[in-house]
Amino acid sequence: MPIKRNKITVVGAGFTGATTALMLAQKELGNVVLVDIPQLENPTKGKALDMLESTPVQGVDANIIGTSNYEDTSDSDIVIITAGVARKPGMSRDDLVNTNAGIVKSVCENIKAFSPEAYVIILSNPVDAMTYVAYQTLGFPKNRVIGQSGVLDTARYCTFIAQELNVSVEDVRGFVLGGHGDDMVPLVRYSNVAGIPIEKLIPADRIEAIVQRARVGGGEIVSLLGNGSAYYAPAASLVQMAEAVLKDKKRILPVIALLKGEYGYDNLFMGVPAVIGGDGIEKIFELELTAEEKAALDKSAQSVRSVIQVVSG
Amino acid sequence: MPIKRNKITVVGAGFTGATTALMLAQKELGNVVLVDIPQLENPTKGKALDMLESTPVQGVDANIIGTSNYEDTSDSDIVIITAGVARKPGMSRDDLVNTNAGIVKSVCENIKAFSPEAYVIILSNPVDAMTYVAYQTLGFPKNRVIGQSGVLDTARYCTFIAQELNVSVEDVRGFVLGGHGDDMVPLVRYSNVAGIPIEKLIPADRIEAIVQRARVGGGEIVSLLGNGSAYYAPAASLVQMAEAVLKDKKRILPVIALLKGEYGYDNLFMGVPAVIGGDGIEKIFELELTAEEKAALDKSAQSVRSVIQVVSG
Amino acid sequence: MPIKRNKITVVGAGFTGATTALMLAQKELGNVVLVDIPQLENPTKGKALDMLESTPVQGVDANIIGTSNYEDTSDSDIVIITAGVARKPGMSRDDLVNTNAGIVKSVCENIKAFSPEAYVIILSNPVDAMTYVAYQTLGFPKNRVIGQSGVLDTARYCTFIAQELNVSVEDVRGFVLGGHGDDMVPLVRYSNVAGIPIEKLIPADRIEAIVQRARVGGGEIVSLLGNGSAYYAPAASLVQMAEAVLKDKKRILPVIALLKGEYGYDNLFMGVPAVIGGDGIEKIFELELTAEEKAALDKSAQSVRSVIQVVSG
Amino acid sequence: MPIKRNKITVVGAGFTGATTALMLAQKELGNVVLVDIPQLENPTKGKALDMLESTPVQGVDANIIGTSNYEDTSDSDIVIITAGVARKPGMSRDDLVNTNAGIVKSVCENIKAFSPEAYVIILSNPVDAMTYVAYQTLGFPKNRVIGQSGVLDTARYCTFIAQELNVSVEDVRGFVLGGHGDDMVPLVRYSNVAGIPIEKLIPADRIEAIVQRARVGGGEIVSLLGNGSAYYAPAASLVQMAEAVLKDKKRILPVIALLKGEYGYDNLFMGVPAVIGGDGIEKIFELELTAEEKAALDKSAQSVRSVIQVVSG
Repeated sequence: MPIKRNKITVVGAGFTGATTALMLAQKELGNVVLVDIPQLENPTKGKALDMLESTPVQGVDANIIGTSNYEDTSDSDIVIITAGVARKPGMSRDDLVNTNAGIVKSVCENIKAFSPEAYVIILSNPVDAMTYVAYQTLGFPKNRVIGQSGVLDTARYCTFIAQELNVSVEDVRGFVLGGHGDDMVPLVRYSNVAGIPIEKLIPADRIEAIVQRARVGGGEIVSLLGNGSAYYAPAASLVQMAEAVLKDKKRILPVIALLKGEYGYDNLFMGVPAVIGGDGIEKIFELELTAEEKAALDKSAQSVRSVIQVVSG
Repeated sequence: MPIKRNKITVVGAGFTGATTALMLAQKELGNVVLVDIPQLENPTKGKALDMLESTPVQGVDANIIGTSNYEDTSDSDIVIITAGVARKPGMSRDDLVNTNAGIVKSVCENIKAFSPEAYVIILSNPVDAMTYVAYQTLGFPKNRVIGQSGVLDTARYCTFIAQELNVSVEDVRGFVLGGHGDDMVPLVRYSNVAGIPIEKLIPADRIEAIVQRARVGGGEIVSLLGNGSAYYAPAASLVQMAEAVLKDKKRILPVIALLKGEYGYDNLFMGVPAVIGGDGIEKIFELELTAEEKAALDKSAQSVRSVIQVVSG
Repeated sequence: MPIKRNKITVVGAGFTGATTALMLAQKELGNVVLVDIPQLENPTKGKALDMLESTPVQGVDANIIGTSNYEDTSDSDIVIITAGVARKPGMSRDDLVNTNAGIVKSVCENIKAFSPEAYVIILSNPVDAMTYVAYQTLGFPKNRVIGQSGVLDTARYCTFIAQELNVSVEDVRGFVLGGHGDDMVPLVRYSNVAGIPIEKLIPADRIEAIVQRARVGGGEIVSLLGNGSAYYAPAASLVQMAEAVLKDKKRILPVIALLKGEYGYDNLFMGVPAVIGGDGIEKIFELELTAEEKAALDKSAQSVRSVIQVVSG
Repeated sequence: MPIKRNKITVVGAGFTGATTALMLAQKELGNVVLVDIPQLENPTKGKALDMLESTPVQGVDANIIGTSNYEDTSDSDIVIITAGVARKPGMSRDDLVNTNAGIVKSVCENIKAFSPEAYVIILSNPVDAMTYVAYQTLGFPKNRVIGQSGVLDTARYCTFIAQELNVSVEDVRGFVLGGHGDDMVPLVRYSNVAGIPIEKLIPADRIEAIVQRARVGGGEIVSLLGNGSAYYAPAASLVQMAEAVLKDKKRILPVIALLKGEYGYDNLFMGVPAVIGGDGIEKIFELELTAEEKAALDKSAQSVRSVIQVVSG
C-alpha cells in the first residue's frame, strides 16, 4: 500500500485556526484542510490559497485547502477545533458557554461522521467544558479527545521566566496543572531552568508576579490588541500537541484529559501531565501534591464543574 | 567583540508585517522589532508579545518586540517595509500612490536616522514606485534598496504549475521579469520542472491560463477574502529575501532594483534577476530577450514610469 | 488504530549506511534500524547507540538500533541497501560485480521475508546491475525497486556550477540521465541557474570541464581520501529519495528505474527522471532527446547491459 | 559593511571533527574550515569536498573546505578543537596527556596567530587538562575558552532516562557537574522529566544504574566499536555549544570553565553550569551543594588537578 501523508483538519479559519494551519504545513506534518461555516467559505479558501502560495518560497510540501464542506475532511488523522465565539461585552458567561457548546457539538457531529478514527484536539473556550462537550458528542474513547490549556499557559510562564533571567527559553521548563488561565495551578517546585528549580534563582515575590502574569496572560494580549485575542502562542501550542501524536513522540505535555479517579477526580476533564503519542493520551502522570496544591486543584476542579453544569443543564 | 544576533525591523504591524516577523523569528534570523504608528502601539505590542510567547513551544530563540518608537529600531541590519494603505473603493490610483508615498517617505526618514547602515526591503504598494521613493528618501547606495515583487509572483506561478502536474513545488522553478501583477513578464522558456522546460510538459493554453492566473493572483486572494489582501505568501517572500542577505546566500532572486543601463533602462526601478547576498543586490543578471519579451518589458517599464511620475510630480 | 512512526532499515553499517541513518534520524523521518552482518554486530550497535545518544542534543525524536538480526527489521516501510565491497587493487570488475551481487541477493532475500511491503532503494555498486539483482530477488513490483545514481551525480554537478558562478546551490538545477559516473549523460540544455540555462552563463569549455569533473566525481573523492570512498553526498542522496517516498512528495528525481519501453529500452535498469512519491516510482518522464544525447544514452545502456550479463551469466 | 557569514574552524578531521563540520553546515551556522596536519591534507580535503557535494541535496548553503594551512582559518569566529590521539594499549595516562598537550599547544599557537578574537571550544582528551593547556597557550580571556564534557555526559544520561520511561528525549533534562566520564557528578535531584524529578518516576536502583551507565558511556561505545570511540554524540554536543555562542542564545549548558573561586575552587577548570552566549561563558551558576555532592565534586577536582600536574610538570 502506498505511503500516504497524514491528513489534518483545522476547524475554524479565524486567526488561531489559520495560524495553526500555517504552522502544521511549515513542519510538513501532513496535508491540511481548513474548514469553516458556509458563510465564511470564501475567506477560508482565500487564506488556504494564500498559504499554499507561500509553500514554494518556504520550501515546504503540503497541500492546504479551505472548505465549508466536511466531506473534504474525510478520514482525517487529527482534527483540531478552534471554532467558537469570543465573549462580547454584555454577554454572560453562560451565554458564551452555551453558544460555543452548540458550535462544538455541531462540529463534532461532523467529525464523528467523516473522521471516526481521528484524534481530536480542542481549543474552543471555555476549554475544559468544550472538551467535555466534544467527548460527549464524539463518543470516542477518552484517549482520543484532548483539550489544550496547559501547553499555552506554560509557554507564557516560561517566556516570563526566561526574560527575568535573560536566558534562552529552550532551557526553561514550567509545570502547571488544573484549568486554563485563572484556574491554572502552577507547580513552582517542578518549574526549573536547566534543571535548577526557579526558587533557587528568582526571589519569591518575582515568581509570584510571574505566575500571576501567566495566569492572566490571555487577558494581557486581549487588552493590548484592543480587538481580538491571542493566536500565535495558542496555534503553536496546538501544533506541538498534534506533532506529538502524528510523530508518536511520547512527549509529556500538560493536557486536558478525562480523569477516571486520577488525582481523586472522577469523570472530570482537568489539566494534567500526560504522555502524548500515537495513541493520543497514552498515560496520565499522577503526582503527589502538597495540601496547598491539592486545595488549588480542588478549586480549579470546582470551577470546571460549574461550567460543565451550564452545558449539561 | 561578543557575537551579536542580527537585528531586523519590520515596519507595519498589519497581517503581512506580523506574519513576516513570525517567520523571521521561526528561522532564528535575528531579533525582531515590529514597529507601527503611535495610534497602533498597543496592538503592535500585543502581536509581538503573543509571538514571543510562542517561542518556548516552537523551540525558537528570538526576541520580538512591538513599538511605535524608532529608537527601538536603532542599528538594524535589515529593515523590511510593509507599511501603507490598501486601495479603497472610490480611491483613485493617484491618491493611493500619494498616500503611500507619504507613508514610505516618513518611514524612510526614520530608517535613515536610526539605521543608516541597514539593507532595506520594500513591499509597500505600488512597489516599484515605493522602492523609488525609499531610494530617494534614504539616500543609500542602490544595492541596499530592494523591492519585493518577483519572488511573490513566482511563488504563485510555481504553485499553479505544481498543481497542474501534481508534482512537488520544490521541483518547480518559474522566472519572471518586470513589474508586479499585471505588469509581470514571465519568461516561460526559462520556467521549468526539474530542469525540464514547462513547454515540454504542459499544453500552451494551460500555460497561458497559469500565467494569467499568476498575474492576477493578488486579486484572486483579495476577492476571496472579501476584506483584505494576501499576507502569507508576501511575508514568506520578504523573509526569503531577508534570509539571502542575512546569511550572505548569493541567492538568485527576481527583485526590484535600480537599473543603470541594464536591459536598456536608466534610472528605473524594475524587476530583474539578481544575486542577493550580504551586500544586498550584488549583481544583476542581464539576459537576452526576444523581441516579444522586450516589448512586454517596455510596457512594464512604461507602467512603472507613469506611477513614478505621480510621486515625482 | 494508533499512529505509528515510519520504520526505515538501512542495510550496511559502513560510513554511507551510518551517515544515512544519522540523516534519516535528524529529519525525524522514522525509527531507524541499522543492520549488518553478524561479524559486525557490535560496531553496528555501537554506531547506532552513539547516534541515539546524540538525539537529546540534536532535539530529535527517533529510535535508532543496530543489529545483525533481520527480524529486527520486520515490516519496514523503506529499506535502503548500502551493503557491498569496494573494488580492491587486483580485483577484476567481474569479481566485484559477482561479490556484490551475492551480497545484494542475500540481503534481498531477508527483505523479502521480513518486509514484503517495503520500498527498496539501492546504492550498492555497480548500482544499475545491483538494482537489477535486487529486483530479481525481491520479486516486488517495479515501482518499489529504486536505484540511486543521478541524485548524487547531480549534486556534484550542481556544486561545481554554484562554485563557478559563486551563487547559492539552492538555485542550481542539474539534469542527468543514464548510468552512474562515467556513464552519466548530462542534459546540459536542461541544466540551469534560477531557470537561466547554464549555457547563457558559463563558457562551453568550462561547462565541459564541470561535466567531466562530475563524471569522475566519485574517483576524485576516492583519490583524496586515499582509503575509502565518498559517503556524505551519497547518504544525503539516499535520504532525499527516502524522504520523497515517506512524505509522498512527488519529487522529480533522476533514479534508476526498470524501463519497459521508455526511451526505447525494454527490461533495462537505467537512470531516468521520475516522480518519486508514496508509491515509489510513480511516473517516468520520457523526454525527447537529440541524436547526440540518444547516442550517449545508448552507450550508457550498453554499459549497463554488459555488467548485467556478468550477474546473469 | 556587507553582512558576512560566520566562519568556524574545526581542528582535527577525524570522525568527530568531520561529523562536527557536517552538523555545523547542516544548521547553516557559517562557513566551515576543517583543518588537520599536512600529512592528512588530502583526506581532509576529501571529506570537506564530499560534504560540500551533499549541500545541494540537503538544501544547505555553507562553504566547507579542508586544509592543512592555518592561514585558511584566519579570523574565525569560533574554533573547535577535536585534535588528539586516543589512548592505545600500553600507553600510560601520562604519555597520553603529554602527547595531546603537545598537539593542543601547537594548535592553539596557530589559533592565537590567525584568529586572535575567536571563541575556542575544546574536546581533546583529557578535556579538563586540555582546556587548561589551551587557556595557557592562547592567553585569551577565560570566557573565550570553553571545554566540552557535560553536554555529552548529559546527552547520554538523558537518553537512558528516556528509554527507561519510554518518553521523548525532548522532555528529559539531566544535570551534571564536575569532570568527564568517571569524574562526572550527576545532580540527580535536579534531573527531571517534564519538570518532574526523576526520583518520583524511577526507582533508586534504576537511577543508580543509569548514572553508572552514563559515567562509563564513552567506554561502552569504545567497547562496541572495537576500534575507535564515539563521535556522533560528541560532535552534536560541540555543535550545540557553538550554536549557543554564534546565535547568542544564552543557553545554560554544563561546560568546563576556569573557576576563580566559584564552588570554592581557584584557578581550576571544572564542569559547571554556565550561560553560553555571544560572549562565550557569560555567567557561571553557583549552586548550593549537599555535603555528599560537594565531596564528589572535590574528588572530581582532585582528579583534574592530578592530570593538570602532568602537563604542568
